[in-house]
Amino acid sequence: MNNDRFFDSSPDQRAIARQLYQTVVNLPLVCPHGHVDPRLFADPDYRFGNPAELFITSDHYVMRMLYCHGIPLEVQGIPSLDNSPVETDPRRIWQIFADNYHIFRGTPSGVWLNQEFFELFGITQKLNSATAQDIYDQITAQLTQPEFQPRRLYEKFNVEFLCTTDSAIDTLAHHQAIRESDWEGRILPTFRPDTVIKIDAPNWAKNIETLSEVSSINVVDYRTFLQALENRRAFFKQMGAVATDHDIQVPSLTPLSAREASQIFAQGLNGPVDEQTARRFNGHMLTEMARMSVDDGLVMQLHAGSYRNHNHPLWERFGPDIGGDLPVRMEYTRNLKPLLNRFGNHPNFRLIIFTLDESAYTRELAPLAGHYPALKLGPPWWFNDSVNGIRRYLNLVVETTGIYKTAGFSDDTRALPSLPVRHDVWRRVTVNWLAGLVVQGIIDEEDAAEMAHTMAYDLAKEAYRNHR
Amino acid sequence: MNNDRFFDSSPDQRAIARQLYQTVVNLPLVCPHGHVDPRLFADPDYRFGNPAELFITSDHYVMRMLYCHGIPLEVQGIPSLDNSPVETDPRRIWQIFADNYHIFRGTPSGVWLNQEFFELFGITQKLNSATAQDIYDQITAQLTQPEFQPRRLYEKFNVEFLCTTDSAIDTLAHHQAIRESDWEGRILPTFRPDTVIKIDAPNWAKNIETLSEVSSINVVDYRTFLQALENRRAFFKQMGAVATDHDIQVPSLTPLSAREASQIFAQGLNGPVDEQTARRFNGHMLTEMARMSVDDGLVMQLHAGSYRNHNHPLWERFGPDIGGDLPVRMEYTRNLKPLLNRFGNHPNFRLIIFTLDESAYTRELAPLAGHYPALKLGPPWWFNDSVNGIRRYLNLVVETTGIYKTAGFSDDTRALPSLPVRHDVWRRVTVNWLAGLVVQGIIDEEDAAEMAHTMAYDLAKEAYRNHR
Amino acid sequence: MNNDRFFDSSPDQRAIARQLYQTVVNLPLVCPHGHVDPRLFADPDYRFGNPAELFITSDHYVMRMLYCHGIPLEVQGIPSLDNSPVETDPRRIWQIFADNYHIFRGTPSGVWLNQEFFELFGITQKLNSATAQDIYDQITAQLTQPEFQPRRLYEKFNVEFLCTTDSAIDTLAHHQAIRESDWEGRILPTFRPDTVIKIDAPNWAKNIETLSEVSSINVVDYRTFLQALENRRAFFKQMGAVATDHDIQVPSLTPLSAREASQIFAQGLNGPVDEQTARRFNGHMLTEMARMSVDDGLVMQLHAGSYRNHNHPLWERFGPDIGGDLPVRMEYTRNLKPLLNRFGNHPNFRLIIFTLDESAYTRELAPLAGHYPALKLGPPWWFNDSVNGIRRYLNLVVETTGIYKTAGFSDDTRALPSLPVRHDVWRRVTVNWLAGLVVQGIIDEEDAAEMAHTMAYDLAKEAYRNHR
Repeated sequence: MNNDRFFDSSPDQRAIARQLYQTVVNLPLVCPHGHVDPRLFADPDYRFGNPAELFITSDHYVMRMLYCHGIPLEVQGIPSLDNSPVETDPRRIWQIFADNYHIFRGTPSGVWLNQEFFELFGITQKLNSATAQDIYDQITAQLTQPEFQPRRLYEKFNVEFLCTTDSAIDTLAHHQAIRESDWEGRILPTFRPDTVIKIDAPNWAKNIETLSEVSSINVVDYRTFLQALENRRAFFKQMGAVATDHDIQVPSLTPLSAREASQIFAQGLNGPVDEQTARRFNGHMLTEMARMSVDDGLVMQLHAGSYRNHNHPLWERFGPDIGGDLPVRMEYTRNLKPLLNRFGNHPNFRLIIFTLDESAYTRELAPLAGHYPALKLGPPWWFNDSVNGIRRYLNLVVETTGIYKTAGFSDDTRALPSLPVRHDVWRRVTVNWLAGLVVQGIIDEEDAAEMAHTMAYDLAKEAYRNHR
Repeated sequence: MNNDRFFDSSPDQRAIARQLYQTVVNLPLVCPHGHVDPRLFADPDYRFGNPAELFITSDHYVMRMLYCHGIPLEVQGIPSLDNSPVETDPRRIWQIFADNYHIFRGTPSGVWLNQEFFELFGITQKLNSATAQDIYDQITAQLTQPEFQPRRLYEKFNVEFLCTTDSAIDTLAHHQAIRESDWEGRILPTFRPDTVIKIDAPNWAKNIETLSEVSSINVVDYRTFLQALENRRAFFKQMGAVATDHDIQVPSLTPLSAREASQIFAQGLNGPVDEQTARRFNGHMLTEMARMSVDDGLVMQLHAGSYRNHNHPLWERFGPDIGGDLPVRMEYTRNLKPLLNRFGNHPNFRLIIFTLDESAYTRELAPLAGHYPALKLGPPWWFNDSVNGIRRYLNLVVETTGIYKTAGFSDDTRALPSLPVRHDVWRRVTVNWLAGLVVQGIIDEEDAAEMAHTMAYDLAKEAYRNHR
Repeated sequence: MNNDRFFDSSPDQRAIARQLYQTVVNLPLVCPHGHVDPRLFADPDYRFGNPAELFITSDHYVMRMLYCHGIPLEVQGIPSLDNSPVETDPRRIWQIFADNYHIFRGTPSGVWLNQEFFELFGITQKLNSATAQDIYDQITAQLTQPEFQPRRLYEKFNVEFLCTTDSAIDTLAHHQAIRESDWEGRILPTFRPDTVIKIDAPNWAKNIETLSEVSSINVVDYRTFLQALENRRAFFKQMGAVATDHDIQVPSLTPLSAREASQIFAQGLNGPVDEQTARRFNGHMLTEMARMSVDDGLVMQLHAGSYRNHNHPLWERFGPDIGGDLPVRMEYTRNLKPLLNRFGNHPNFRLIIFTLDESAYTRELAPLAGHYPALKLGPPWWFNDSVNGIRRYLNLVVETTGIYKTAGFSDDTRALPSLPVRHDVWRRVTVNWLAGLVVQGIIDEEDAAEMAHTMAYDLAKEAYRNHR
């Protein structure tokens, strides 16, 4: 591994970047948003499976890349809904992955995987067809070691807290188990109510029933629905939650009257509502979530702009989360106006927005965050969580907002072993960017040192109001 | 201050940038578009107020940045329309500004302020909580000196001419006073008719009455309305104006028939017209403005894409211009077609477009300016008038248009003391960019030297047809 | 000429770039998409005309640049449809071009022209008013030499194959002549059916008649129309075609029922169809083209997003292709969904998309190509085929797709003499970009060397399935 990776090649800037990097490299990891399964920590004896499961079948970044090169999901060992035969030998899946490993050159997955192989597993060979089985053996041997248990990795990685993402109707049993154990890791739930506040979610009526059960509030109308949601938010908060999280394709957020919302809710209980009505209700519910955030202080996260299950034939055969979620164009200035006019000036409200549409960085999101006190910008997300993606974000956003209206870094991953490398990319790219500002005379070294710490650690912690 | 600020850190490029910079650093400032108050020059004894007024309350870039970090406008000393109490002690306002000065790190305001403090006021300390009051005293002491009178600053800054922005129904009394004085500074008005050609402008009917008064043409119908506008344009031109300026949210510019325009105008005199009709009339009036430009040679400036007063609750309490104007997405190719098809090939017509939507640079604006003779691209505007904003503009626009279809730099500021630093940022970034082209073998040093002069000085002058 | 042109100025990166460049500089040119006239190769004695014709009147990049600076097309020697007088003296046209040559500084045309003058014609002076006639003489003298015959240039340039773009109703007589000659150059036709599958194309009914003639299938209804198209595709393929090419303003691709398509087709034969119907039919026909591609294996190219003949008055006087085609905003994720859902997972299908809307790179196109096996991304096109355009493309696209879902380079030019310089720009920019990845520790030198070859040569060949 190149110790100066992601640093500028000019000696002046590189020297400053190195210096700044030393001040942040050992800071704890703050992980306010991600998708690691809490089960990994609930079971003290949890072990990861084989290398194929760890690196391929559980990582939809890797899966979609292999798929786009013509390698069917079955061959990757992904089970289909119609139970057609799939590859079950992890060694064969690993071999195919290795045979095609060149496709990851220059991609963030390539960067992460190389660094994980080297730093976490001590692999010194390049992965390719010839080395595949040998590397498979090396990884397998290590996975059985106790230091590869999730709780040990959490400690080794020096994680300060890690937020998971949990359905609003989840019992949080795994979180309960963690809290009841003697382990001191801070695994915090995040309230994700998509399946109940989106009236057109699959099995919505069923989900409302579950909502009644878990909240012990009999949801029979819009009023009891809101009560049950408030109840669940309180429970999540009591279980350590600091935030809610929301997925919406287009952030069109116009509130409805209580009367109209009630009518649509009643209609939904009786059967499906049309697309247009659903969109209005769902948008309205986000403004209700904002209202509740003003009350309970949970930070509201908005992940906007993903068209889910775009590849319909593949979705029919394999279900969701197999790489077929694709970005669409976004408009924020007009769409967020009703919400921001209501709550954007309120000191209790905090909204963190993540975008897949980078054209909105300078045009809409930075100016909005540079005006409304409640709004912060989340870091580059998903496709844009990359060396260049972070650079673009910094260059496009910071001149308008400064760094202090951004929410620091969040790794947003389900892959626990990848936490350190993801934070490392962010830290390296940010210190190099700060070094560039110093060399150009925009900030001085004193400012740069303070900002390096802030970007590596404080911003994320402060953005999520996590000051234990 | 770093003498190489904004220059590339590679020694080759930096050496060329330094050399080019020496050839432009002392060129006069050409200021074809901005918002400096002509009153500053009309009164030969004008003095700036205190540091808080000079740097905070009069600068909506600074104000909105403090506001977005939760510092209420009242605390910044901004008077509200409901006369609620506001901070009136400039020292306390200044202290709050200093306490939060870190939020400007890496922003253009930070760059400008640091350079102004140092170069204009000779401050050698960093502004922070501890140094606040001392720096306040130093600035205050200097503001009383005669060399800080606006006319002296104009001379010290080596301004060649400075255009203000003036309502079409302004009497231009301050401009008259300047012309009648023995001072030789060239302060030129710019014709800004928003309040009369936007039929849905606040107090439109009242403004039309004022238009009658100042033009001595009794505006009773669409025909006399056009006559009065032509009359005012002629008056502005006679007072030195070289350009008109227009703000429009979406540049949808389809002409109406004279008959329809007359009907809408008559309707407007009788009461409010609906939003859709207003938009059509307003767009039509811009095509009329273009027609008049063909006749009188005034350069037409279009500042498109700002959603005014987005923060409605704040606007209700504090009125316009408090940082709540926010960019929206823009479409130019289709929207400008009617106008460009009519006048875009006409040698008398000159249209300069400014955008807040950088995604239109390569996609629409550069190709349009690279085809229609009448069209030039204005420099990066507002949020994008920054080191990175200028770099993006040059990298995105010039390959398609060359530099000669751009309009050079305009500072677009109401802050007279910031003129030199704003032009300095432009000049430094452009020479560094030219140095980059030389190092990469795209142009030679001879071309670069000529282009450096052109970009620092000639383009703006030529674009505004100002060849005194 | 600077031997390090387009390379980074940092010594580390430059050294690696130089090394990589040496490995690709002499690779054959693969030219899978362009507009060179096959007539140039059909006639073994073909000679280029004068310098003005070669560099100005036949190059709409140059023409539109002169036009946007106020030089009328007549003065450039472009014949008008109304037969008004135009400049006919090529020396005078050349002089005007030379007088204004500074407008090309920093543009790709400037880069290409300078390198062509120097490398192809051995000109060592800079073109300007003073040197114009001397350079004219030098070029003229060389054009008469046998080594400037198109077939000799093809050989000198080391072209491996060159695809032209040909109307679906073209007889391919020139291609036939080339194949029947003893010359071994590989000039391949490309099937471009715009004039027959766009039901609102000028003279559509007439074109359908020609389609009947050239296919020997009497096109009387939608069924025979499809047969005739299949027949022509088979003929093109037999003549060496590897691809089809399609121009569409907005890629809205929803299939119609056969019944509805038949009705609209019948309606079209009887007279013009309305705009909305035409758009639906034209979109449908592209899905039919995709279906045929699945069957016959021809690669489908989509050039989306050009608003043709935007400058209506100029189009009325001079017709199409005089620089008045301008980009518009694009949406791909939703628009391409029906097509990609049908054929995007099919191993026989290959779709290459070119865009003029760079905001879609990270947001839509890279994610789409990073998911659907059938989709590859074409290189930067037209306004974006430039040093910065290529850089942006690589930085915006590759992290999401890797290089292996891109289609390499295509020169897309009608100017045969410019082939080498256009490929050289691509090769220089790509090796420098790879050198940057090495210096930053993202790939190693071994990977970089392999990728340099792949990007310079293999990708284009493989993308177009051309493995002779």
